[in-house]
Amino acid sequence: MNLKDVRITEGFWKKRKEINKKISFYAILKTFEDSGRIRSLTKDLKDDETHHIFWESDLAKLMETAFFILSHEKDDKLISICDNIIDKIIHNQEDDGYLNSYFSFNEPENKFTNLRVRHELYCAGHLLESAVEHKKLNGDSKFFNAMEKYIDHIANIFGREKGKRKGYPGHQEIELALIKAYEHTNKRKFLNLSNYFISERGKKPHYFDQENIELEKNEEPLDISKLPSEIRDFIRWQHGHRKQQHDYCQAHLPPLDQKTAEGHSVRALYMYTAMADLARINNDKKMLDTCKSLWRNIVDKRMYIHSGLGSAHIGERFSFDYDLPNDMAYAETCATIALIYFADRLNKIELNSEYSDIIENSLYNLILASTSIDGTAFFYDNYLECNPGFLKFQHRRHGIRDKYHLCACCPPNITRLMASVDQYIYNIFDNGLVINQFISSEIDLTDQKQGFKINQFSQFPWEGHSLIEIMESNNLYSTIYIRIPHWDKNLQISVNKEEYQFSTFNGYAKIEKKWKKNDKIELKFDFTPRLIRANTKVRYNIKKASIFRGPILYCLEEVDNGKNLNQILIDDNIKFKEIEKKIDNLKIISLEAKSKRLKSNDTLYTTEKPKIINNKIKLIPYFCWSNRKENEMIVWINES
Amino acid sequence: MNLKDVRITEGFWKKRKEINKKISFYAILKTFEDSGRIRSLTKDLKDDETHHIFWESDLAKLMETAFFILSHEKDDKLISICDNIIDKIIHNQEDDGYLNSYFSFNEPENKFTNLRVRHELYCAGHLLESAVEHKKLNGDSKFFNAMEKYIDHIANIFGREKGKRKGYPGHQEIELALIKAYEHTNKRKFLNLSNYFISERGKKPHYFDQENIELEKNEEPLDISKLPSEIRDFIRWQHGHRKQQHDYCQAHLPPLDQKTAEGHSVRALYMYTAMADLARINNDKKMLDTCKSLWRNIVDKRMYIHSGLGSAHIGERFSFDYDLPNDMAYAETCATIALIYFADRLNKIELNSEYSDIIENSLYNLILASTSIDGTAFFYDNYLECNPGFLKFQHRRHGIRDKYHLCACCPPNITRLMASVDQYIYNIFDNGLVINQFISSEIDLTDQKQGFKINQFSQFPWEGHSLIEIMESNNLYSTIYIRIPHWDKNLQISVNKEEYQFSTFNGYAKIEKKWKKNDKIELKFDFTPRLIRANTKVRYNIKKASIFRGPILYCLEEVDNGKNLNQILIDDNIKFKEIEKKIDNLKIISLEAKSKRLKSNDTLYTTEKPKIINNKIKLIPYFCWSNRKENEMIVWINES
Repeated sequence: MNLKDVRITEGFWKKRKEINKKISFYAILKTFEDSGRIRSLTKDLKDDETHHIFWESDLAKLMETAFFILSHEKDDKLISICDNIIDKIIHNQEDDGYLNSYFSFNEPENKFTNLRVRHELYCAGHLLESAVEHKKLNGDSKFFNAMEKYIDHIANIFGREKGKRKGYPGHQEIELALIKAYEHTNKRKFLNLSNYFISERGKKPHYFDQENIELEKNEEPLDISKLPSEIRDFIRWQHGHRKQQHDYCQAHLPPLDQKTAEGHSVRALYMYTAMADLARINNDKKMLDTCKSLWRNIVDKRMYIHSGLGSAHIGERFSFDYDLPNDMAYAETCATIALIYFADRLNKIELNSEYSDIIENSLYNLILASTSIDGTAFFYDNYLECNPGFLKFQHRRHGIRDKYHLCACCPPNITRLMASVDQYIYNIFDNGLVINQFISSEIDLTDQKQGFKINQFSQFPWEGHSLIEIMESNNLYSTIYIRIPHWDKNLQISVNKEEYQFSTFNGYAKIEKKWKKNDKIELKFDFTPRLIRANTKVRYNIKKASIFRGPILYCLEEVDNGKNLNQILIDDNIKFKEIEKKIDNLKIISLEAKSKRLKSNDTLYTTEKPKIINNKIKLIPYFCWSNRKENEMIVWINES
Repeated sequence: MNLKDVRITEGFWKKRKEINKKISFYAILKTFEDSGRIRSLTKDLKDDETHHIFWESDLAKLMETAFFILSHEKDDKLISICDNIIDKIIHNQEDDGYLNSYFSFNEPENKFTNLRVRHELYCAGHLLESAVEHKKLNGDSKFFNAMEKYIDHIANIFGREKGKRKGYPGHQEIELALIKAYEHTNKRKFLNLSNYFISERGKKPHYFDQENIELEKNEEPLDISKLPSEIRDFIRWQHGHRKQQHDYCQAHLPPLDQKTAEGHSVRALYMYTAMADLARINNDKKMLDTCKSLWRNIVDKRMYIHSGLGSAHIGERFSFDYDLPNDMAYAETCATIALIYFADRLNKIELNSEYSDIIENSLYNLILASTSIDGTAFFYDNYLECNPGFLKFQHRRHGIRDKYHLCACCPPNITRLMASVDQYIYNIFDNGLVINQFISSEIDLTDQKQGFKINQFSQFPWEGHSLIEIMESNNLYSTIYIRIPHWDKNLQISVNKEEYQFSTFNGYAKIEKKWKKNDKIELKFDFTPRLIRANTKVRYNIKKASIFRGPILYCLEEVDNGKNLNQILIDDNIKFKEIEKKIDNLKIISLEAKSKRLKSNDTLYTTEKPKIINNKIKLIPYFCWSNRKENEMIVWINES
């Protein structure tokens, strides 16, 4: 199934995609122009601008956004923007195929000498992914050909064959890009290099240790004696401590032996995605089992309620089971984007609603939250509790989306996901159509074994109603699998107005029949707001609840509820009123309810229990927070 | 009243003081010898050892410990250790009086050029304090004379007079030391310099801004372009951000205009102590009011339950009202030591039991906790919740006391406080004797207006019983003021076996009579364990309680209660059994009680409320935690 076969048609996601295309894409493009990312390609940086190793990866992702948009509609302006960037990028390709303008211009002698830290292979991966999507568009292969030449160059340098270096990326990404190239071209060299990078990783003697020895031989020693002691300490930590931590980039063990999610969360999830791809393509049961162990560790023990991953901000990394602090959360946007990839890949191997449940939760909560409603600014870290004063003293971002990030991995990653969200709605399994997401869209399978074209009208995320209509049909007998959301114990399905008693398969409702034009499947979901509790091993959320309605996670914001949000108490039989409301012109459903509130005591410490007063609370969707002002926010609310 | 007039005689504090004298003093001395702090004075550092600007302050505090010990007993070994260090220190004094071996040996051209950062005046302060105590001992004035010469040199450089620089310390300390020198010598020049440092501070144009302009003129620019980006960012932050933050060292406003406790907590409390001294000596009502505003802000809004101050570890500083995170606490030991000074100074101006309440709470909880029971290792930061895994990923100390600290301000500060704790027990007010602390001790006032000598036998902190006996008496009529602890609503006082109906004055019970030899005052305190709640604006402690018995704060430790301590629930009518127990040979009272415990759910997130099971808990005094292993600990326990 191709992205082109699916098209989001109307409603909530259509509007978010419009903002992504019309606002976010250009907002990011402008910051990339202003910051020198495009001028760097033609050596036109100003004196006070510093070229950066991974700037090309930012451009690659932003262009990929454009390619996804262009797969659904013509847009000459977008084409010309990308053509211009592509031309500039490939103009810098060296004769041997090498393609990273930072190194070519600034440190040609240091190419591929510091794989652990310096992101060259990561950049190559993003460029390759982008080039594949570019070629898919209309067969124009100038970008892809350049990248193929670069990949050939990389494959000449790295590998197990005599004369090659047994290196692999310090920041994984190229592994999954190579699989995309393989699946598009069917050229095994791409698959082979991906297999090599994964299977060589973490072997002993450790490549990164050897690399460090070489680096130290050539390093000019830095005289740090005159630096303030705190800077000296920091440099010592950087040069000593981290060097030893191979788990930071998932190189502490061969990937097949990794059972828990460790280290930098984005590196980890990109790698797991590639591993799932390889498990499928190589039919590698052991690799699949490893992926499933990693998946279980993540979703059972290391994932925030909004599907954020990587709770430790130092190192942007996984920490340990049940360590999910709310106000200190990192939960980088890119990690959850990569979690969607990983879930999607696993769901393609073995259909299970859990995978698409997590995709749904990721999309509606963390991913939507990562962009401001107006589409101009982006979250990098995704807090579950925000106290601006506290964050300031922790030297963390204050809970305000930034228009520009010096390290800009997240914004174009968000736009390319939003532009391609169509591809997570449907799936094919065992000749049946799988409906994973309830998003207004159409998919044309008239040329396929299913032999029909359908149109889904969904009122998600505000109302629990979807209607699936057969628009055209070859009148074939087949199965439609409909995900039963984990949060819905009362899903009602009717087919042509009659209640349908469905059987289930791995969390999907199965509807089997000979499909005729104008057949209608109606889905009624239970959107009653529900209270969710965390495992009591999550010490931050003891005696607290978070609130969902359908797929949407809610939160309390200071602007609606005053300061000191943790004084609010809710109880089990709280009754919510659903109120339509607008935030920054987006129509949403807010929730209002009677609650209690702890009063402030008169003193800092007292033997008295605090008094409790009646209170009213207003909840908004988590993804809408911080669109009105910098203020307090909580997801987890104390229970009385 | 002199330290020599008071003597701790037996019991709990006598034993802690013995360990301080016999173990801690020598343990620290050894780390100072091993690390080169003493060898540096004679230029005998090894090649890989780096001389440090504030090493002399470490030695000064350790020697001051010895001088306090020597004020109560002869100890030739201690005298010779200190004589050796003093001789080495003053040998390095330059002809003009300058005395800091780091600068004399390493950067003579940079003396007093960077007051904001480089701690020269701080070192001078500690040396001066130490020299005063040395001179008090037996009148030997070689150390004091050297320091007086150095202070004269400093006073020649800094001041408002023409030709002098209007500088003041970046790390306050010398201000309070100068007052000690003034009160011991009656030489106004010491008082004048202290007055100058406080009154010049924070004025505009800002001295530190001017100093920075000069520094930048002479600075060799550091080429940071080749450094990894995270180090570059860190250096930029150090050189830019902090430079502007005059509140970090309480120089954002003239001290008289400061109403809230801001910035680095130790700098702040040393300054407030000097301000309280100056308020008393200068009879300065406005300064006293300022001190009281600062005091109120601290104790009403910014103090941990164990009297820890400065909740933000970045900058070791105060943050904002009610921001008291438990697991991220900084609460540096030195800050609470300085809080004791500040409280003591205020109590000498206007008797109020609150000041000595805070001293009691500081001593029995944070200060005792800061040293391991065996006396060999020390806390710098004082957590109220410890999760070793979490701290590791935050790059914080793990909740294990260290034998050696690279920045060793705390350990010798603890030992000098422990060696001089006697001086916080009694006070004189309006010709009466004030009993602030219930510590077995004697005080001889036969030559004073009170005309008696008393002996206090106290069973604190384990039993709520103290007996005060008049040992000798001139049969004069006078008042004994006895602090009524804020936690005791039922204090019973009997005089010569008869219940005494006392009147009160600012939280003190007043007993007035003509005191005769063998008069006995018996005090019975209510040691029923009590639950303490924090103001609900402290978001970390909502629906939690901490437990005290008498002056002792209790905690739960993993070694007694298993992992996941936050699963434990207590309720209001919890009944405690008091159990005698030993930890590392120290006899303590532990508390045991029936409680509840939340079970772990089966999944990470669920609509179900967690099940609650019956449980038993064992509490130990907070100060005993982390004496058995690295493990979880909590002070604030969830209430059901």
